[in-house]
Amino acid sequence: MIFFRSDYSLGGHPQVLEALANTNYEHWDGYGLDDHCFGAADTIKGLIENSGAEVHFMIGGTPANYTSISAFLRPHEAVLASRSAHIYMHETGSVEARGHKVVAFDTPDGKLCPAHVKEALIEHEDEHMVKPKLVYVSDSTEIGTIYTKAELTALSEVCRENSMYLYLDGARLGCALTAQGNDLTLPDLAALTDAFYIGGTKNGALFGEALVIVNPELQPEFRYVTKQQCGLLAKGRLLGVQFEALLKDGLYFRLAEHSNRLANKLRDGIAAKGHGFLVDSPTNQIFPILPIKLVEKLEEKYFFYRWKPIDENNICIRLVTSWGSAEEDVDSFLQDI
Amino acid sequence: MIFFRSDYSLGGHPQVLEALANTNYEHWDGYGLDDHCFGAADTIKGLIENSGAEVHFMIGGTPANYTSISAFLRPHEAVLASRSAHIYMHETGSVEARGHKVVAFDTPDGKLCPAHVKEALIEHEDEHMVKPKLVYVSDSTEIGTIYTKAELTALSEVCRENSMYLYLDGARLGCALTAQGNDLTLPDLAALTDAFYIGGTKNGALFGEALVIVNPELQPEFRYVTKQQCGLLAKGRLLGVQFEALLKDGLYFRLAEHSNRLANKLRDGIAAKGHGFLVDSPTNQIFPILPIKLVEKLEEKYFFYRWKPIDENNICIRLVTSWGSAEEDVDSFLQDI
Amino acid sequence: MIFFRSDYSLGGHPQVLEALANTNYEHWDGYGLDDHCFGAADTIKGLIENSGAEVHFMIGGTPANYTSISAFLRPHEAVLASRSAHIYMHETGSVEARGHKVVAFDTPDGKLCPAHVKEALIEHEDEHMVKPKLVYVSDSTEIGTIYTKAELTALSEVCRENSMYLYLDGARLGCALTAQGNDLTLPDLAALTDAFYIGGTKNGALFGEALVIVNPELQPEFRYVTKQQCGLLAKGRLLGVQFEALLKDGLYFRLAEHSNRLANKLRDGIAAKGHGFLVDSPTNQIFPILPIKLVEKLEEKYFFYRWKPIDENNICIRLVTSWGSAEEDVDSFLQDI
Amino acid sequence: MIFFRSDYSLGGHPQVLEALANTNYEHWDGYGLDDHCFGAADTIKGLIENSGAEVHFMIGGTPANYTSISAFLRPHEAVLASRSAHIYMHETGSVEARGHKVVAFDTPDGKLCPAHVKEALIEHEDEHMVKPKLVYVSDSTEIGTIYTKAELTALSEVCRENSMYLYLDGARLGCALTAQGNDLTLPDLAALTDAFYIGGTKNGALFGEALVIVNPELQPEFRYVTKQQCGLLAKGRLLGVQFEALLKDGLYFRLAEHSNRLANKLRDGIAAKGHGFLVDSPTNQIFPILPIKLVEKLEEKYFFYRWKPIDENNICIRLVTSWGSAEEDVDSFLQDI
Repeated sequence: MIFFRSDYSLGGHPQVLEALANTNYEHWDGYGLDDHCFGAADTIKGLIENSGAEVHFMIGGTPANYTSISAFLRPHEAVLASRSAHIYMHETGSVEARGHKVVAFDTPDGKLCPAHVKEALIEHEDEHMVKPKLVYVSDSTEIGTIYTKAELTALSEVCRENSMYLYLDGARLGCALTAQGNDLTLPDLAALTDAFYIGGTKNGALFGEALVIVNPELQPEFRYVTKQQCGLLAKGRLLGVQFEALLKDGLYFRLAEHSNRLANKLRDGIAAKGHGFLVDSPTNQIFPILPIKLVEKLEEKYFFYRWKPIDENNICIRLVTSWGSAEEDVDSFLQDI
Repeated sequence: MIFFRSDYSLGGHPQVLEALANTNYEHWDGYGLDDHCFGAADTIKGLIENSGAEVHFMIGGTPANYTSISAFLRPHEAVLASRSAHIYMHETGSVEARGHKVVAFDTPDGKLCPAHVKEALIEHEDEHMVKPKLVYVSDSTEIGTIYTKAELTALSEVCRENSMYLYLDGARLGCALTAQGNDLTLPDLAALTDAFYIGGTKNGALFGEALVIVNPELQPEFRYVTKQQCGLLAKGRLLGVQFEALLKDGLYFRLAEHSNRLANKLRDGIAAKGHGFLVDSPTNQIFPILPIKLVEKLEEKYFFYRWKPIDENNICIRLVTSWGSAEEDVDSFLQDI
Repeated sequence: MIFFRSDYSLGGHPQVLEALANTNYEHWDGYGLDDHCFGAADTIKGLIENSGAEVHFMIGGTPANYTSISAFLRPHEAVLASRSAHIYMHETGSVEARGHKVVAFDTPDGKLCPAHVKEALIEHEDEHMVKPKLVYVSDSTEIGTIYTKAELTALSEVCRENSMYLYLDGARLGCALTAQGNDLTLPDLAALTDAFYIGGTKNGALFGEALVIVNPELQPEFRYVTKQQCGLLAKGRLLGVQFEALLKDGLYFRLAEHSNRLANKLRDGIAAKGHGFLVDSPTNQIFPILPIKLVEKLEEKYFFYRWKPIDENNICIRLVTSWGSAEEDVDSFLQDI
Repeated sequence: MIFFRSDYSLGGHPQVLEALANTNYEHWDGYGLDDHCFGAADTIKGLIENSGAEVHFMIGGTPANYTSISAFLRPHEAVLASRSAHIYMHETGSVEARGHKVVAFDTPDGKLCPAHVKEALIEHEDEHMVKPKLVYVSDSTEIGTIYTKAELTALSEVCRENSMYLYLDGARLGCALTAQGNDLTLPDLAALTDAFYIGGTKNGALFGEALVIVNPELQPEFRYVTKQQCGLLAKGRLLGVQFEALLKDGLYFRLAEHSNRLANKLRDGIAAKGHGFLVDSPTNQIFPILPIKLVEKLEEKYFFYRWKPIDENNICIRLVTSWGSAEEDVDSFLQDI
């Protein structure tokens, strides 16, 4: 079976595994207080050009999201998100489990814009309603789209004008920043958001995300909240070592470029056969709409996700590529379609 | 200023006050373990024709809602509600503060139907999403509409087929059960829901709601959860005494009929002048759409809520009547319009 | 049966009931935004000599406690309390239900002192442990003892030196401030604590406590957290009206003096018969240690709480007086002992 | 610097690393739904001789503890634990953050016994207090001691008689089951507890614990709660692969025996020099009491934890060995003492 199911079906990139093996017999203090974590954090502060940021290595995207939101908000403060946002749909209510409402907006492209924020601020007018305080966006989004610098700047401005925080989920940040049409950089993210994370799990790591807290007022005692909300990894060095490997010589971005290139090839090939898409995606997740019959046929050889029914005869599927996807598998799929 | 602002702008009905005065010098054990609470609970079990139900007197509607949901659900289980539902919009995220997601549906009439439930069950397909477990409805709804017996029966059936609970918020249950078009009774509610409450605050009491837990599997140790989530009222007898007074000789329903009659008169009078309404309501809340100029004029003499803007020239307002509303104030309003 | 069971077995003081009756037909906006609440708050700000304080009328002591702690603390911050503290033992874990640990100290007199705080600060040394942030004390305590000004000042100082908050539960504050040996005043409390409440339920009100938030950094958006954590009382005016009545012409303190005087009489009479006490209490709760046989005999005529067994032959009981206790009942008890 | 600081200062055992490398290029579905997890779970069900148990691979001990407690308890139910218990002292209030009180007992040996449980049940008598529902024990305990079969059986019985759950934290279960004096087996644990976990992090894994839920009533929908409370590891196969390696041919127990043997050697050598211990420990953590001067000298060469001051001249330190500890380091320490 050929996997276009997700970008986490393989283990880690060989350079990541090698780094783990090479450092295995080093003794380090636990919970992220080791030289590998310190070094990787410094590298990230250099890449984002912000020495005042704090970097915390988190075990996964869901913990990064709910821990941040727990640490940043008071009990009555709420999150704004797209209805397709990972925190809204695919984290089993982990934000609500920490006490915070997620106010969701239907957005065909999975992105929020200032109008959503303003609408929420008008609607939530007094203490009988939650207070919108944090805007959650993903780049790339859960449906593969990306934010432009102008779009993120506009969101950032509306947040700052209203004393709200902007948080960016970067589970697939590598693919976003290397996508066609992207004009955002890591320093831009540090300048425009209050916190964001650089996703490792879906781009070469075994696991792990690097959470960057830019806003100094959100930094104090974050490790306390991490320990309480998701636990601190005893062998925290595993996260530092992996990010050292990923960030060395631009490996992280090369892996994302590979994912994007293969997804683009799939997309263009499928489009060339005359099929449409749920949304226009320049990153490693694409959402072609195909005849059900064809999908059933493809499922004999390929493993992917049925995204949603479109009509009686057609269905939208999701195809995902990763650093480990093989060009011949893409070619084979295009031939079979 | 004449109040059509809410149904809680006055104190309590004189018979309620008199009962409180008459029992003031009785000594009773605290926290609801007194003969007035026991007696009122027995009266309610008689009225609903269900001796196996448990009755708990709660201090208000919001506490009744969040305490019930806390007690009934496991951490990953979620609530389905209309987007206009009190728990979704007007309880400052108190359900989410207890850890549970509220999945909301846009419904023009403020009511849920089996299709909403089925849609939620299809969408929430695995452990990465919350599990829909409790359907929350209000009767009358937050916009004055009511459920028919057929509608509530259909909801009850879809809940039972899917091992879900049906919870009915009866903040304005008196007005619902005495409205034109209503064919539900208290025994029907006990038969169709797992729990519901009979609202006192908005129908003659100083404060207090009678929560009825019909489903035996939801009954155990509810008082523990009440104490923890909202506190038990030390002088719990105050709740029992008030409900004894309200339920004596049908006072509760007479008060609601009065509210409805005046609201109907307002509604018919406003309609006769050619104005429309946001929604068709047979209960004590009506939502006329009026020219802004007229609204501004009316606000000099009447106190009511601007519900929402309709267009450049018109606005929807909310008018609410109560057991204490005076017919001459209604007449005056109709004259001034 | 004669009640020495609690100070909430009766209804409210007649002047409280009269005030409720007198204001019953006034229309007011809901949720505490009425002139009675505003007026009572102003009276309190005058009594505590602090115009910058915020006053919130809460429905009971347990909600006052957990709402304050929810609003004041971040998720990893903890409370220090005596093991006999109401929040530790008798609120069904309502502080923990809001996410915060209560670190408890065994204290024979129910009081905390700076040594407890320092011990907690030494023990909780890093992010693997909660961070002590709020010191909870009660005056009078749950076992009837009171704080001196020197004791409270010492606690206040150790809190401020360590950026901690001092919160005082005043469920029985009237009895504390009018007790023999007390040298604290309301302005002292405002100067020494960050927040405290003036208890109404146990001193003449039907229900209600006046929470005073002195520290300005704890004031913002407290009403949001109140609505979310315990609900805002729809007819909030009921709280304002009652406190207006209680605070008029010193009624509140006269009621407490009455309670104390009768409790003192009971205490002195019991001591005169040669019985000992669990603790020396100058307020309205006393804890005599009596032979079990005598207790069984007394229980035929008096209703009180068996506090705890002492040895094979003796048991400690709790006797509580209130504004409504009758001198002849005290005399009768002393005769029967 | 020679590390006796913890049993998680190294990476993973070479056979664990090898297994990860060997399986790295296999594609698997995410979140623990892969053949390695299924296989390791089956192996565990065989070892515990209980085919009806459920096995869940958790990312760490703290998440295993708080996720279990969240899933097993209703809001008002509480946990009983030793004051030295990891959940009480070293998880930053993560159980309280999920809403549950931990009632702690001072126990010099870190162990609970039926008397503690009975005392708690007597003290928590009604709905104003939390309800004790789950007994948390660790084997080995946080101070290195172990339970005998008789002790655990007695605890299990008192739990079952009172409808309480028994949960065993096995972070160092390997060392417990291979210690001198142990007479418990894995099948015993499955028979006596409702749930327990087999710790990987501290015995050869990079990370990961195998949670075993024996009691069928605690099994339903545990994955939902896991996703919500701590997140499911995207590449869940990493946990299955590691446990396959650890459980193959008894590696897990051989590693624990090595840890114990070296700790015993340290202990016996230190005792031979005439030094005492905080507690008598047969496992891989020992707590010698040494002169402060000697400790300062040792700290130049060895990295360990100062556990607590004893008196002016002496201090208790903690020495921990692991699968990767070297015999020559132990010999060197004994020579230097």
